[in-house]
Amino acid sequence: MTPPGPTTPTNGSTTHWVLTIVCADRPGIVHAVSGAIVESGGNITESQQFSSDDTGTFFMRLQVQSAVDRAAFELHLAPVVARYGMDLTLDVVGRPMRTLVLVSTAAHCLNDLLFRERAGQLPLEMPLVLSNHPQLSGLAEFYGVPFESRAVTSPEQKAEFEARVLDAVAEFDIELVVLARYMQILSPELCDALAGRAINIHHSFLPGFKGANPYRQAHARGVKLIGATAHFVTSDLDEGPIIEQNVVRVDHSRTPAELMAIGQDEESRTLTQAVTWFAEHRVLRDGARTIIFK
Amino acid sequence: MTPPGPTTPTNGSTTHWVLTIVCADRPGIVHAVSGAIVESGGNITESQQFSSDDTGTFFMRLQVQSAVDRAAFELHLAPVVARYGMDLTLDVVGRPMRTLVLVSTAAHCLNDLLFRERAGQLPLEMPLVLSNHPQLSGLAEFYGVPFESRAVTSPEQKAEFEARVLDAVAEFDIELVVLARYMQILSPELCDALAGRAINIHHSFLPGFKGANPYRQAHARGVKLIGATAHFVTSDLDEGPIIEQNVVRVDHSRTPAELMAIGQDEESRTLTQAVTWFAEHRVLRDGARTIIFK
Amino acid sequence: MTPPGPTTPTNGSTTHWVLTIVCADRPGIVHAVSGAIVESGGNITESQQFSSDDTGTFFMRLQVQSAVDRAAFELHLAPVVARYGMDLTLDVVGRPMRTLVLVSTAAHCLNDLLFRERAGQLPLEMPLVLSNHPQLSGLAEFYGVPFESRAVTSPEQKAEFEARVLDAVAEFDIELVVLARYMQILSPELCDALAGRAINIHHSFLPGFKGANPYRQAHARGVKLIGATAHFVTSDLDEGPIIEQNVVRVDHSRTPAELMAIGQDEESRTLTQAVTWFAEHRVLRDGARTIIFK
Amino acid sequence: MTPPGPTTPTNGSTTHWVLTIVCADRPGIVHAVSGAIVESGGNITESQQFSSDDTGTFFMRLQVQSAVDRAAFELHLAPVVARYGMDLTLDVVGRPMRTLVLVSTAAHCLNDLLFRERAGQLPLEMPLVLSNHPQLSGLAEFYGVPFESRAVTSPEQKAEFEARVLDAVAEFDIELVVLARYMQILSPELCDALAGRAINIHHSFLPGFKGANPYRQAHARGVKLIGATAHFVTSDLDEGPIIEQNVVRVDHSRTPAELMAIGQDEESRTLTQAVTWFAEHRVLRDGARTIIFK
Repeated sequence: MTPPGPTTPTNGSTTHWVLTIVCADRPGIVHAVSGAIVESGGNITESQQFSSDDTGTFFMRLQVQSAVDRAAFELHLAPVVARYGMDLTLDVVGRPMRTLVLVSTAAHCLNDLLFRERAGQLPLEMPLVLSNHPQLSGLAEFYGVPFESRAVTSPEQKAEFEARVLDAVAEFDIELVVLARYMQILSPELCDALAGRAINIHHSFLPGFKGANPYRQAHARGVKLIGATAHFVTSDLDEGPIIEQNVVRVDHSRTPAELMAIGQDEESRTLTQAVTWFAEHRVLRDGARTIIFK
Repeated sequence: MTPPGPTTPTNGSTTHWVLTIVCADRPGIVHAVSGAIVESGGNITESQQFSSDDTGTFFMRLQVQSAVDRAAFELHLAPVVARYGMDLTLDVVGRPMRTLVLVSTAAHCLNDLLFRERAGQLPLEMPLVLSNHPQLSGLAEFYGVPFESRAVTSPEQKAEFEARVLDAVAEFDIELVVLARYMQILSPELCDALAGRAINIHHSFLPGFKGANPYRQAHARGVKLIGATAHFVTSDLDEGPIIEQNVVRVDHSRTPAELMAIGQDEESRTLTQAVTWFAEHRVLRDGARTIIFK
Repeated sequence: MTPPGPTTPTNGSTTHWVLTIVCADRPGIVHAVSGAIVESGGNITESQQFSSDDTGTFFMRLQVQSAVDRAAFELHLAPVVARYGMDLTLDVVGRPMRTLVLVSTAAHCLNDLLFRERAGQLPLEMPLVLSNHPQLSGLAEFYGVPFESRAVTSPEQKAEFEARVLDAVAEFDIELVVLARYMQILSPELCDALAGRAINIHHSFLPGFKGANPYRQAHARGVKLIGATAHFVTSDLDEGPIIEQNVVRVDHSRTPAELMAIGQDEESRTLTQAVTWFAEHRVLRDGARTIIFK
Repeated sequence: MTPPGPTTPTNGSTTHWVLTIVCADRPGIVHAVSGAIVESGGNITESQQFSSDDTGTFFMRLQVQSAVDRAAFELHLAPVVARYGMDLTLDVVGRPMRTLVLVSTAAHCLNDLLFRERAGQLPLEMPLVLSNHPQLSGLAEFYGVPFESRAVTSPEQKAEFEARVLDAVAEFDIELVVLARYMQILSPELCDALAGRAINIHHSFLPGFKGANPYRQAHARGVKLIGATAHFVTSDLDEGPIIEQNVVRVDHSRTPAELMAIGQDEESRTLTQAVTWFAEHRVLRDGARTIIFK
């Protein structure tokens, strides 16, 4: 999924590129990659790598200052990519990622994404917010983001909503779909269509609780930590590869409603963190795990 | 379980008492208790209370400076205790709690308990460490604590071990049993016999994992937080009321062995914290929950 | 500073009151207070107390369910208040506190206050935002809060701005002034006029740094933790009683600009936490210290 | 300071090497280093790098599986080292670092170092503990570490103690000196002699406090966070490059003595963490900053 980024340098005469590389692990990869970069006249400013013993896969993320344009850079890299069978992405550092946000009625996650994007802390471009409820239109509009809502109360409506999601993904050339407390289960087909580019947030407890009203269960059991997990969407509900987790301490005096408010704060910051890393090409997948190059 | 503490003041002419009170919630309890304390000449130096909406129970912990001895103090309190049907404990602040420690082969939790007791940070008196393995005898002996080991590899040996636990509880008038990584499942009978005075520690993950080798499972799923939970022992394995929990952040580069080492650190500090609060009469039970008066 | 709250019960036939009591410490206070409450027909639902060894002062915060109105409640409490020379406040739980917010150009703290107030998590009523710059007017207006800006670039303008602050405090019967990244030093006269009811936020480092551009200094020294401190405003710049502090971990790869962005997050959540506790009457002053009844 | 490690492979037919590289930053370094490693038949298993904008310095840490011995490996690397003017260290992963520990009377840091070394979590070899007090001899002896004490109550005794430090450094070929709550100020001469290989731990507060009894000052100011900083020893007292910092939350109810106990826990874990990273060659110096390759 190499994004169709700028083809000419963007920063005066040099561009700051970000590369990610995934391939089968074997000796010589770093040398080959760095050789191609040196030949192209590029200078490596940041580099992280990881060899997974679980899957025998090699992962690398590089930032490179270079005066060449995209076509020339790709030409330099092509032989190495071919030789090692690499999955390569090449993007410009800081380019806003085209993101579709799905919400229902809870505002906390959407507000955090919008505010931070506006503050320049989150490299996102949000052409649309889609919701199954109308409540959050005002918030989206304040930040100048188009908002559409359509009810999802029947299988037909659900199919229509999901068709609209796929339309919007195509229409806006969407690279990331964020489920910012979207309270509908996605169909397996949609999960597959968005595999690797949809991120969900949900609450997390120690120990975990199944079934309805987990905050009430957590209260009943007297848990001392509640938190949130951001993960890739898969058709295994809430079981996709984990991107980020946070917890916060609570005590016996908290009501279930207070636990929920506290949990929502963790949801916001955990989701925003996961989205930021994804938009910066810092999240790579290794089977059921994620490699996070912070 | 009022401990047979000193019957006369221990601190010059005044004693620093700690009281815990549990009873059905109704108006006037605080006034009645404080009235009895004022009449006895005592001065309240610390007070915490909580009314549980879940069970309609009232909980209170007080520290009181008083010149009266135990018998006189109890005489002053008796009418209030009777009137409200209170479950009262009365102890001297800082009195070491008589504690039996059960271990297997892992040293980290035992070492932390022994070191902190020696450092004066943990009000425990440990007359005995019991183990199903001989490995930790040297550690116990360094700190001057008697150590017994007996193998548990058959149902008969298990019954003998548990009989020795109950004997030791009786022999040393034990108030608290700490399972400091004791890797045998206690029989339901022993769980019942120790109900409310046995604390266990186990690892915790977000999400939870069932079955063998949880650290390997956590690694496979790529969890970002691992932790530990200290809880009361009940016959529901690892499901007793939670006393304390902690987590620590990990990343993709950690091996299962490293996750285990990190998890052990959390186990030590979480268990020590739970034991400290218990020994200071700061842990009260409210059904499946705990009230922690920190 | 007893606020002129409602004089009749607000919650059907009963009101949920919050009381704070400060007086010289001596035996019998708790008994006397609880007696007055029992006589008035009230039921204590939450109670915290602390005796300061530093100043010999007794602090208490109570929540009480009661069917009486304010006048009747105060009548019941009056003899105890007189006898112990108490500083008493009596308010209704959850009543929004009338708050004046001062800002300059940074949006993060103001946004967090407005969003959480709207979400029902922060019991504030904000009749006005005052600024020395016009930039944040749109944000305030989105949340329906009046916004005034006037430049502060000369001593005369500063005096006028501060006069407007005092006018607004009087006009709106302000109980709390929040300096949400207001980047002007208040005059000693204004600090005195707002003593005990103005809260400021500033960045914090380990170790501390004096002088301009502390984030650059923190970067140069390679600090691993950066944070924020919320404190009462006093004429000793940034040295008032501390209400809340937080830190977050950073590493060598962060630029000074990134350190600043991270620090701003800590500022937002620390200020909002401090303001929440203040609005809930959980912050009491003990000389240069604060007592926080969480 | 390349340690005189094993000259032949240690792990069957291959050795797991750790390299650190520091040199002036310029294009091509990674390619040149990886080329030399590939030529030598090595496989890079872990790699981290950082380019400091502050000093124009390039930092790299690599782990390499290789079948060659030290002499052959160094021969392969020599041209690259010469060409880039590299400061290179080459060691075997996990080799225990020869460490001299200095203590006074507080046991907490020493106990943590000894227990974790014994548990296999800390790659240290401790041939000697030196103290200006005799109290901790039993603890060192339990772990089988020789202990020497000599009083330091006069300038002459201080000079003798420091001479013994330098003797021990030479005698045991010491690579790291740990001041584990050694409560004497080192002379500038000793600081210089140990530059870059001596680590100290001290308490940290927000804000910082100068002068005697900082815990009492922190209490008086009502700080909410206390912590610890591990740093390199320099002749600027407590101002050396920071390696690691931690804080923990406290509240108004803590006495100065309790603050000290809490602070000591942070000291232990912070010092042990810093020492672990140093022993694993993860700590590099960049002027007044440290680069930590976790």
